[in-house]
Amino acid sequence: MSSTWGNNIKLSLFGESHGKGIGVVLDGLPSGFEPDFDLVNLQMQRRAPGKNVTSTPRKEKDAFEIISGLFHGKTTGTPLCCLIRNEDTRSEDYEKTRHLMRPGHADYTGHVRYNGFNDFRGGGHFSGRLTAPLVFAGSIAMQILMKRNIFVGSHILDIFGITDQLFDPSSLNHEVFQSLSQKEFCTLDEAAGFRMKEAIIHAKSLKDSVGGIIETAILNTPAGLGDPFFDSVESKLSSMMFSIPAVKGIEFGSGFDLAHMKGSESNDAFRISNGKVGTLTNHNGGILGGISNGMPIVFKTVIKPTPSIGKMQKSIELTSLNDTEIEVVGRHDPCIVPRALPVTEAAASLVILDIILEKEGSLYG
Amino acid sequence: MSSTWGNNIKLSLFGESHGKGIGVVLDGLPSGFEPDFDLVNLQMQRRAPGKNVTSTPRKEKDAFEIISGLFHGKTTGTPLCCLIRNEDTRSEDYEKTRHLMRPGHADYTGHVRYNGFNDFRGGGHFSGRLTAPLVFAGSIAMQILMKRNIFVGSHILDIFGITDQLFDPSSLNHEVFQSLSQKEFCTLDEAAGFRMKEAIIHAKSLKDSVGGIIETAILNTPAGLGDPFFDSVESKLSSMMFSIPAVKGIEFGSGFDLAHMKGSESNDAFRISNGKVGTLTNHNGGILGGISNGMPIVFKTVIKPTPSIGKMQKSIELTSLNDTEIEVVGRHDPCIVPRALPVTEAAASLVILDIILEKEGSLYG
Amino acid sequence: MSSTWGNNIKLSLFGESHGKGIGVVLDGLPSGFEPDFDLVNLQMQRRAPGKNVTSTPRKEKDAFEIISGLFHGKTTGTPLCCLIRNEDTRSEDYEKTRHLMRPGHADYTGHVRYNGFNDFRGGGHFSGRLTAPLVFAGSIAMQILMKRNIFVGSHILDIFGITDQLFDPSSLNHEVFQSLSQKEFCTLDEAAGFRMKEAIIHAKSLKDSVGGIIETAILNTPAGLGDPFFDSVESKLSSMMFSIPAVKGIEFGSGFDLAHMKGSESNDAFRISNGKVGTLTNHNGGILGGISNGMPIVFKTVIKPTPSIGKMQKSIELTSLNDTEIEVVGRHDPCIVPRALPVTEAAASLVILDIILEKEGSLYG
Amino acid sequence: MSSTWGNNIKLSLFGESHGKGIGVVLDGLPSGFEPDFDLVNLQMQRRAPGKNVTSTPRKEKDAFEIISGLFHGKTTGTPLCCLIRNEDTRSEDYEKTRHLMRPGHADYTGHVRYNGFNDFRGGGHFSGRLTAPLVFAGSIAMQILMKRNIFVGSHILDIFGITDQLFDPSSLNHEVFQSLSQKEFCTLDEAAGFRMKEAIIHAKSLKDSVGGIIETAILNTPAGLGDPFFDSVESKLSSMMFSIPAVKGIEFGSGFDLAHMKGSESNDAFRISNGKVGTLTNHNGGILGGISNGMPIVFKTVIKPTPSIGKMQKSIELTSLNDTEIEVVGRHDPCIVPRALPVTEAAASLVILDIILEKEGSLYG
Repeated sequence: MSSTWGNNIKLSLFGESHGKGIGVVLDGLPSGFEPDFDLVNLQMQRRAPGKNVTSTPRKEKDAFEIISGLFHGKTTGTPLCCLIRNEDTRSEDYEKTRHLMRPGHADYTGHVRYNGFNDFRGGGHFSGRLTAPLVFAGSIAMQILMKRNIFVGSHILDIFGITDQLFDPSSLNHEVFQSLSQKEFCTLDEAAGFRMKEAIIHAKSLKDSVGGIIETAILNTPAGLGDPFFDSVESKLSSMMFSIPAVKGIEFGSGFDLAHMKGSESNDAFRISNGKVGTLTNHNGGILGGISNGMPIVFKTVIKPTPSIGKMQKSIELTSLNDTEIEVVGRHDPCIVPRALPVTEAAASLVILDIILEKEGSLYG
Repeated sequence: MSSTWGNNIKLSLFGESHGKGIGVVLDGLPSGFEPDFDLVNLQMQRRAPGKNVTSTPRKEKDAFEIISGLFHGKTTGTPLCCLIRNEDTRSEDYEKTRHLMRPGHADYTGHVRYNGFNDFRGGGHFSGRLTAPLVFAGSIAMQILMKRNIFVGSHILDIFGITDQLFDPSSLNHEVFQSLSQKEFCTLDEAAGFRMKEAIIHAKSLKDSVGGIIETAILNTPAGLGDPFFDSVESKLSSMMFSIPAVKGIEFGSGFDLAHMKGSESNDAFRISNGKVGTLTNHNGGILGGISNGMPIVFKTVIKPTPSIGKMQKSIELTSLNDTEIEVVGRHDPCIVPRALPVTEAAASLVILDIILEKEGSLYG
Repeated sequence: MSSTWGNNIKLSLFGESHGKGIGVVLDGLPSGFEPDFDLVNLQMQRRAPGKNVTSTPRKEKDAFEIISGLFHGKTTGTPLCCLIRNEDTRSEDYEKTRHLMRPGHADYTGHVRYNGFNDFRGGGHFSGRLTAPLVFAGSIAMQILMKRNIFVGSHILDIFGITDQLFDPSSLNHEVFQSLSQKEFCTLDEAAGFRMKEAIIHAKSLKDSVGGIIETAILNTPAGLGDPFFDSVESKLSSMMFSIPAVKGIEFGSGFDLAHMKGSESNDAFRISNGKVGTLTNHNGGILGGISNGMPIVFKTVIKPTPSIGKMQKSIELTSLNDTEIEVVGRHDPCIVPRALPVTEAAASLVILDIILEKEGSLYG
Repeated sequence: MSSTWGNNIKLSLFGESHGKGIGVVLDGLPSGFEPDFDLVNLQMQRRAPGKNVTSTPRKEKDAFEIISGLFHGKTTGTPLCCLIRNEDTRSEDYEKTRHLMRPGHADYTGHVRYNGFNDFRGGGHFSGRLTAPLVFAGSIAMQILMKRNIFVGSHILDIFGITDQLFDPSSLNHEVFQSLSQKEFCTLDEAAGFRMKEAIIHAKSLKDSVGGIIETAILNTPAGLGDPFFDSVESKLSSMMFSIPAVKGIEFGSGFDLAHMKGSESNDAFRISNGKVGTLTNHNGGILGGISNGMPIVFKTVIKPTPSIGKMQKSIELTSLNDTEIEVVGRHDPCIVPRALPVTEAAASLVILDIILEKEGSLYG
């Protein structure tokens, strides 16, 4: 099944990039919650294209219409459906090249998966545009978590080898996230951010693209969330993160660096602090045995370079099965990492809310 | 839910490390398949403890009894239950330290999750021992895939910074996997393997432990497997891999290195070869848009250092909420990476079989 | 979770009776199927209100807009979203009586379930109006089944004790279903239908309502569909049928009459006919051990009298917790059985398609 | 998938009638619950065969072994596995007739479903014997409900047309259920029970069998349980009930009698009683709009006559596809209704617990 997710909340994504619209049905939300649509819009706008030199000039207002599930401004508890109409599509860009398989894209795999009946225009259902309803849904989830004092935030850690500083656990709090979410380019170190933007603009000038790494943190999750094995917090978060187009890796806590550590280093020592259980380090990223331990849940995801590039590339023509070359025209981001931040935050919020509702029960909001 | 998994096959793990036994129910298998139990035993033995200096001296024959689902040596199509009795347990080792939270373990999170009612002996249900029934189930799945010419294999890529060579896609085949599975220490480069073993023995001499990285490959998966978004091949594989205790990161294809590449490098160029569609490189690890593209599916997982170490560590006493220190006695692996190889292969096999059955239908074996 | 269903296709219903609209997301459909929207409209019109004296004068064109999942007139294989805007709503009818709990309705249970935040207007998400998108989705499923020569049909068997003849298995075929679906009042025996309509009109004149029984049959299902226990054909069909508002009972084959039969009567004798396995009778309704046996799948569902009646009824006022009386004004069907036929057929079609796809695999349409 | 069930608790049944054993894995139970195994045994014994003239002389102690999930007598919260070894099997009875399809049984459908690889002995996985682990699991669930003051009970309402009185809602309470569960033949009216037994014995003397109807009630469920549409209380209960072999119909409240009632009769009038909301009648069986309304949840299930009868029956020989005759030898119940009571209670308890945990959350027991 492509597009249905969740145990305690159910998410159903629909739509294609160049069809009538895209949207989401979100079932299982607590009733009586009053979303702040300014916050929803803020996250939607952070994801939206066309804002600056680092993103595609395609302009989508991403204006959403709530079809159901909201009554007198509050969630009813029954399915919330959000519809976003497509506008400013240039489908003809894609008609010309429909048999040319764009490298790095789902053109070929989508064709095989759906026996040639997929909507190929702009990637169709595979388009990164489908992350807009995901951000909508995740923004609602994020606000429900905020009422429980749980906060989700992220920043750009790495673009083409230029690195931001890591989140500093000793000073990390909601204000840091809020400040990041209002930045035009989300790094902790603005100088690093400036160099990253230069690298993106340079790649764009070469008709090329670059990728990067996002660091995400979730604060104030209580200990005891998640389950051993298949519903571990890592299993659920990773499963969701790999749903985001272009994510190709995830690591929790010290992640791949753990391969070079000794147990005496990587084991996070327990200590009582202010009468509460904590750990002195957080190499395990807030998760032990699949269950949250009360420390910040911290993970990194890698976003591959935007596959749509103007440079000439080797490809194939699918009807004749001949080798050929392709230049991908159209409007594309030279780097999608900045726009992927609110998507990552939305995805993480949905996962944590789903896990929280398993603990708390789904009946009352 | 802790321990139930799958869309088209359903896996249900049960048991605790020091209880009566552990096991698995595997539902949805095709009927009429005749497992080769020598191959099952081979994988079980690769995972079993007590074989050499790099693993715990706890001896478990891991003798399994098939309770149901097999008739005249063939799968019936109804649930296959496998039971493994526990033997050679030394529960008293754990009774003494039940209120001391072992760093890096699930003692504390399990206590909170289950309100203090979890079986704490040897990690209980969180124990790595639960991977034995997972290997059993995965070995059956692996054999069903082999009949479809799909092969799953892995090797140790890195231990404490000592690295094996990567799988060479141009020469990778079933024989390489077979040869690896018969090695006592699974590296492609035996000299690297020798140095890795030295590092493990050295860590052991220090009452410490080390971690590492596993590279896994799946050969001959047809293009078109998986779904966009939540049931992407990456989502399903990662979700399963993080069910394996000690896994803290996963990356597909070039993974985190994609952050330092340009799109013109990371895009795998399509080319027709022998009338079939292929790509010249495999930076995407055989998956585009969440769907297999026919290239080998390749991923790396990081295994953290064994948390059980004899060295003195800072910890807490849970009843008094006091800081204290702990030396973890008992028999433990200084490095669990070698034993994690068949677990990774089993887990990958279960995922791919589940996805294959979505395509092929589950009725006939 | 209220409104998400299915193993191999996923159905997500959304909307409220007096909100912006209602709709459905249908995920997992085979790709490349070209729906006949005349047939979809026929079923939608059979369900729509306002057609004759036996139904509510509320006029809903039930005009649907397909938002996604259709490209060049064929299913893409990715989620199909259908939106139906609400029109001709008279919400003020409900505002006046919002604290008066209508007997037989979900007003009270919905209030408790959603802590008072449910959209109470016209029953909100509980409204029978939500069966419109169900009929849309089921009509697509029904057509996919028709390509496999599987047909679903139904008729009114009983209204207020006036009975139609049962389906005659010896002559039952697609033409019978087609002829029924084109009738203004779907009975096999037109004289019985005439008397049923009289009973409905009489109930209406008394500001009262009546219920009835629907007999449904599914023809040409191959033997071997379904699973033992929890995914038995009966389990899946019944689960879906009780999703339809007002259904309070279901029986397969001879159903409750089996309580008065001997085994030698109720056992359907096997016989070879034209080289194929069949049974001489069909007391088991085409299902043995939860699995289809190749005979017609036959079941009856009982529909309770429309709870909305103009007669004075005893009720309560929820804010004051006082006893009171209520006359339900507004436009209501004195009998919903005729409009429930296409809903039952849609629901049955979705179930059978879901089971078929488990057997056949979901990849190719 | 045949044998896995549940949203908040997960049930996995395994085993075959004449294999090594049968059992169940129950995942998602609250931790810290201490089962009373005398009560479990009481329910197991009520289901067990060989007790009196109305049941098969096959003797199964149904001695169960708890493999996991229990520690110091209390649930750990991790999967509870229960294993029941098979004894006293006479497999040779079945080998002789393996190609003769027993009418009314799953021999033929199981053969087709599993392509001839099913364990045919005694019905294999389709055997009513699989209800033993279901009763085990349900008895645990029933006790967890009892701690919440929710009680589940049932009685034989009808055998071959001889009827017991209905549950009297005004006097129904836990004591009535307890008294019934201790009866050797569970009717409210002992004279009716005596005549039912005579009918069963008479059927047995004719090498025939009879069926019947069970009435089940669930007391003290709070209002607000369940969900609209696909997870309605009726959907979930019916889906589970049709998992029980031989159940062919279910009706809630007045059920099929609603077809002959007017809305003014069938609508249950709301009334305040002792400050609480109740209804004067219970034609809706405690469920409105799929949600519990606080009244007793009442339903009836019909059990078909035991298909195993000694009388000569028409059948087929599957290898030659010839018509033939069959006399089913072996030990069989002339009526399984009495033994089906604890199965129905177990099944209902599992459903209600699953729904309760959705409301309450699954973390703490």
